[in-house]
Amino acid sequence: MLEELKQKVYEANMLLPKHHLITFTWGNVSGIDREKGLFVIKPSGVEYDVLKPEDMVVVDLEGNKVEGELNPSSDTETHRIFYKEFPNIGGVVHTHSRWATIFAQAGQGVRAYGTTQGDYFYGEIPCTRDMTEEEIQGEHEYNTGVVAVERFKKYGINPDYVPAVLVKNHGPFCWGTDCMNAVHNAVVLEEVAMMAFHTQLLTGDRDPMSQALLDKHFLRKHGPNAYYGQKKI
Amino acid sequence: MLEELKQKVYEANMLLPKHHLITFTWGNVSGIDREKGLFVIKPSGVEYDVLKPEDMVVVDLEGNKVEGELNPSSDTETHRIFYKEFPNIGGVVHTHSRWATIFAQAGQGVRAYGTTQGDYFYGEIPCTRDMTEEEIQGEHEYNTGVVAVERFKKYGINPDYVPAVLVKNHGPFCWGTDCMNAVHNAVVLEEVAMMAFHTQLLTGDRDPMSQALLDKHFLRKHGPNAYYGQKKI
Amino acid sequence: MLEELKQKVYEANMLLPKHHLITFTWGNVSGIDREKGLFVIKPSGVEYDVLKPEDMVVVDLEGNKVEGELNPSSDTETHRIFYKEFPNIGGVVHTHSRWATIFAQAGQGVRAYGTTQGDYFYGEIPCTRDMTEEEIQGEHEYNTGVVAVERFKKYGINPDYVPAVLVKNHGPFCWGTDCMNAVHNAVVLEEVAMMAFHTQLLTGDRDPMSQALLDKHFLRKHGPNAYYGQKKI
Amino acid sequence: MLEELKQKVYEANMLLPKHHLITFTWGNVSGIDREKGLFVIKPSGVEYDVLKPEDMVVVDLEGNKVEGELNPSSDTETHRIFYKEFPNIGGVVHTHSRWATIFAQAGQGVRAYGTTQGDYFYGEIPCTRDMTEEEIQGEHEYNTGVVAVERFKKYGINPDYVPAVLVKNHGPFCWGTDCMNAVHNAVVLEEVAMMAFHTQLLTGDRDPMSQALLDKHFLRKHGPNAYYGQKKI
Repeated sequence: MLEELKQKVYEANMLLPKHHLITFTWGNVSGIDREKGLFVIKPSGVEYDVLKPEDMVVVDLEGNKVEGELNPSSDTETHRIFYKEFPNIGGVVHTHSRWATIFAQAGQGVRAYGTTQGDYFYGEIPCTRDMTEEEIQGEHEYNTGVVAVERFKKYGINPDYVPAVLVKNHGPFCWGTDCMNAVHNAVVLEEVAMMAFHTQLLTGDRDPMSQALLDKHFLRKHGPNAYYGQKKI
Repeated sequence: MLEELKQKVYEANMLLPKHHLITFTWGNVSGIDREKGLFVIKPSGVEYDVLKPEDMVVVDLEGNKVEGELNPSSDTETHRIFYKEFPNIGGVVHTHSRWATIFAQAGQGVRAYGTTQGDYFYGEIPCTRDMTEEEIQGEHEYNTGVVAVERFKKYGINPDYVPAVLVKNHGPFCWGTDCMNAVHNAVVLEEVAMMAFHTQLLTGDRDPMSQALLDKHFLRKHGPNAYYGQKKI
Repeated sequence: MLEELKQKVYEANMLLPKHHLITFTWGNVSGIDREKGLFVIKPSGVEYDVLKPEDMVVVDLEGNKVEGELNPSSDTETHRIFYKEFPNIGGVVHTHSRWATIFAQAGQGVRAYGTTQGDYFYGEIPCTRDMTEEEIQGEHEYNTGVVAVERFKKYGINPDYVPAVLVKNHGPFCWGTDCMNAVHNAVVLEEVAMMAFHTQLLTGDRDPMSQALLDKHFLRKHGPNAYYGQKKI
Repeated sequence: MLEELKQKVYEANMLLPKHHLITFTWGNVSGIDREKGLFVIKPSGVEYDVLKPEDMVVVDLEGNKVEGELNPSSDTETHRIFYKEFPNIGGVVHTHSRWATIFAQAGQGVRAYGTTQGDYFYGEIPCTRDMTEEEIQGEHEYNTGVVAVERFKKYGINPDYVPAVLVKNHGPFCWGTDCMNAVHNAVVLEEVAMMAFHTQLLTGDRDPMSQALLDKHFLRKHGPNAYYGQKKI
């Protein structure tokens, strides 16, 4: 069942240690088959060096395990909310990567200070609000997704243009057109968070780059007028 | 004598260079056989690339060398105090890992700013007080352990729930259910110390995460209601 | 056509991942044949692990593609301006290397605090001014080069003595006598930027090294009285 | 001539890239034969991956090249002064290692904040004063050594107990009982400088560890009452 997607999600998970985004088992990637309404996710707490494609767990959009011998990631409910609320995304990744987590712990978004961020994110990568005690003590992982989506809706942020969120006092979730693209965005997030941290330290303020430069760089790579890469050939 | 434990303690010691927790010989791991009341520890000052399982030294809980051709680690007395005072622990590790040592040098505990720490440590990882001149000039390594244990008793910290301490102007000691788990906690400590450092720099204060979130995350992985990982299968 | 130069430019591009100067495809190197008035540059958006020498694109100094199946780097116009305006340079490299980009994002030049910088750069590595909305919305990559060259001309900086510039809110461009030398300078820039950042943090000010020491070190390696290395043998 | 020493000095030089202490050729190690009054040093500007034992250059204590086809390191005169003025040392190493160089650029010594430093250095690792224009424009490398030695004599620092100095706006020189020990100290310096930097940032001041703790740790490893390691066996 969904063997091709399981293989791809497995490979996307294995990119996390390769890109130094995780320690031990602190991360998970999922990918969705939109037609079937099923997503495939890493099992909970399994070490990366023994992980196999067939260990991947299949879950439906109501959160029921459809196939798999192991428990799905404890973050499955958060992934599920993203798939339900952000209809264009095809993959989700969660890590505790250092620099993104530092901003999450500080409760600050990662502002766009340069074109490195502007090439992938159309502005600040937002950080969620504090969760209430009820949200924490209730369905915590589910509510984590709800609070993240709330942040995008409330401020009118397009999740296809800003494919990441920082969950306060926790860490980042990223997404993308598929699971590989989600991991790609997680690598970019870590890189721009590291540079944003030190930029703020150097300048002492948080003035982002100009809107004109952000527009230019983001739209150079996204949308109908993109001209970066080999797409036109 | 205790060949299996020696092998395991040897392997745990070899994880220190693998996880980049040590430079040269600046670290040591021990593990205890509670039934026999004996613990096995790395010899003093031996390079990791020539270390062998049979080099491990066996010591009893009164501090006598029971077996081994080499001197036990100069930190043996500190390990011994932890085994005597913390009855549930099975392994102890000492390193000079960079970020934990930075907090130890600053005389600050590592506060819990996020779920990465909350998944393993039920709150702040404490730093000991200054030792007195008498404590330093007397049985220094023994007193190091005594002062660390004092910190836990005085503030009512459960060593099974906060499996690490920072010795002021020195470095971290971690422990765990066995020697492998102790090293695991040492890796986590280094990771959360790195992130706590930069979180403080970013926010300019030291407000920890909410108690509700800490409760949720620690108890998700520890105690009777834990649901993380594959334990239920 | 220009097969030898293509091979060399290919090899120079492959040094970028080796020296940890790039993530994904965020960088490009070019080299020029001054006699023919043609330069060779990496194609746009091609992954480094599949890049081949024959993928290199040949461009003339008016910006026309002369040979190559792929699109040239989207930064080609910036490279072209440097070749036109700085007549002694033989290679150009652009990266988003972390520490140089941090200074670019902060809008600060990298001051010379020590001999490491003084051995390669005769003073501060400058940062460009903000581009106007017109410059951004017009021929952006072309104008990037124009604004960088303007910085050198306006302040009388010799590009042969200061072979790098930081483009504000973007990242570094470096150059050199050939494409290999340009990459060499990019490595040095990253190293001195990292150290300059922390020097400023430690001292709280931006006082550079003395002019006498800078003169001594730069002229030890450059110009007719150089005595470093094996040149005299 | 001195083939054994050449081999050893070669190996010590090769430890610099292994321990990530250098970029390109920015470092050099030498070792002395005290009986013959000759020292062996790396040639100037030769890449580490082509360096051979037979490339090492033999120099006498008056600074004359005694053997070798290549030019000796441009820092040879500085090494020579250390051998002349510090009679117990057997090896010298110079690098531009990042954290030590940051302190040198800031003009600050590396204070002893913890036992990691106290195990090797009996207190602060000092930074030299600014050189005068005359000293810079004259025999610069010779004067570099003179100014460093002056720092030790003026403040009564024992070079056998503090085996390193930071040359202001330049970088570190370390020494030791032989060339291997000098490199060992260079690794320690880099480690303690990194931790001292962040300790200062965390506390906002520069209060070193207590003298009692420093005495205990340094004397645990040095002098007649040392008990660390396997020496007594």
